Amino acid sequence: MRYARVSAGGRAVWGRVGEADIELLSGSPLGPDGHDVIGTIPREGAHWLPPVVPPVFYAVGLNYPRHIAHTGAETPGRPEVGYRANNALTGHLSPIVKPAGITGRFEAEPELVAVIGRTLKHATHDEAREGVFGWTIGNDVSARTWQHQDRTFWRSKNSDTFKPMGPWIETDVDALAQTTTLRVNGAERAAFPTGDMVFDPYDYIVAITRHLTMHPGDVLWMGAEATCRLEPGDTVEIEIGGIGVLSNPVLLEGNQS
Amino acid sequence: MRYARVSAGGRAVWGRVGEADIELLSGSPLGPDGHDVIGTIPREGAHWLPPVVPPVFYAVGLNYPRHIAHTGAETPGRPEVGYRANNALTGHLSPIVKPAGITGRFEAEPELVAVIGRTLKHATHDEAREGVFGWTIGNDVSARTWQHQDRTFWRSKNSDTFKPMGPWIETDVDALAQTTTLRVNGAERAAFPTGDMVFDPYDYIVAITRHLTMHPGDVLWMGAEATCRLEPGDTVEIEIGGIGVLSNPVLLEGNQS
Repeated sequence: MRYARVSAGGRAVWGRVGEADIELLSGSPLGPDGHDVIGTIPREGAHWLPPVVPPVFYAVGLNYPRHIAHTGAETPGRPEVGYRANNALTGHLSPIVKPAGITGRFEAEPELVAVIGRTLKHATHDEAREGVFGWTIGNDVSARTWQHQDRTFWRSKNSDTFKPMGPWIETDVDALAQTTTLRVNGAERAAFPTGDMVFDPYDYIVAITRHLTMHPGDVLWMGAEATCRLEPGDTVEIEIGGIGVLSNPVLLEGNQS
Repeated sequence: MRYARVSAGGRAVWGRVGEADIELLSGSPLGPDGHDVIGTIPREGAHWLPPVVPPVFYAVGLNYPRHIAHTGAETPGRPEVGYRANNALTGHLSPIVKPAGITGRFEAEPELVAVIGRTLKHATHDEAREGVFGWTIGNDVSARTWQHQDRTFWRSKNSDTFKPMGPWIETDVDALAQTTTLRVNGAERAAFPTGDMVFDPYDYIVAITRHLTMHPGDVLWMGAEATCRLEPGDTVEIEIGGIGVLSNPVLLEGNQS
């Protein structure tokens, strides 16, 4: 099943995504209550929102061996996470806005995202597996000059629109047996196996929930193996097999409509 | 006015806090809609929740000159923020749970907290002032061994119960002209002027909103000048003049009721 959030009648509504249509739902599939179909809209022309606004937005940093080698960092010996911020989220087809006046590399990082579906504390590996509601795609857009200048990632990775996520949450996919493909203006720039990770999502959930409770709607971004530069005017696409394609145009601040 | 969130009838309800009673409200004072009084409970015995669950949880690190000198770090030349995580929030009078098996210093950090009331982007200093809905108190509980061992603050500062916040949001106080007092088991351990900051909350809001949109309910924890050790069995109190007292018992994991 594919669940999305779309803007309908001026508000955010959950929907079940079909081939041609989206069935609008009365509530969240992540909540404890059931939900009814309250309408249908065509998929074409839908205004896609981030498929969930997480209570906590977890992000794994170094998790793909080739990316770690590229950065020159040491391979992590245990799962550790960082955080991103909800203000930066944007949906499928919405623009990534490059701030005016920043110089240096402005890059896409294509990531698999696990969406948590249950309250988890001291989870076993089996409970971690059962605790993932579904999977989506994230683009961890990063302004490298700020990343190197600043003490934290606050603006290098959390400026508005720097965290496209979507297009939807896919509940039926073997997410660690897929390929992540990064394209700019239709040209492939990177492709790597989703599952080629130092620690997989379940390892992270087990480690995190030793000390922290995870809640339905929390997201866990799993890191990227490859990155590529973006320029205003580009369109960046991330495809993960069995999930879908997250596509976003890149605009320069001041030039967005 | 003092606004709190309390547990009533098994759910989280906003309330307006008086001397003896809490008037329960039909909605959030931070929302665009009005709210009616839907009931009253005695203040005594109320179950206090964190006064807000923020969309984004901002935390300032080094911001008081004496604390910066103590850490040996350089004084920041510009406002930069980090993040904390909502799973760690707990309310006034709820226990701080020290994880079993951690060694080293386990400490309280008493902080002034600004609660954002408006959507802010490219805010001026005046807009930043008008954009603060009110003020509360935070305790940035920290496990130093993990803080030094880990690449991020994920468990050192974000384990469950490590972020007491409350007891309420005070909307009518000159928050930067007060004294923050830290007490353990009734004995004063530190006292410092709230306003003795390198950058004040409005400086931060102006800097943050150059690149990031702040939203109603976002919180900005302003850092601490002093810290003190906590042991299971202690009760830690943070008082900020004109706001109130945030009090929490400390328990060892496995010993909580």
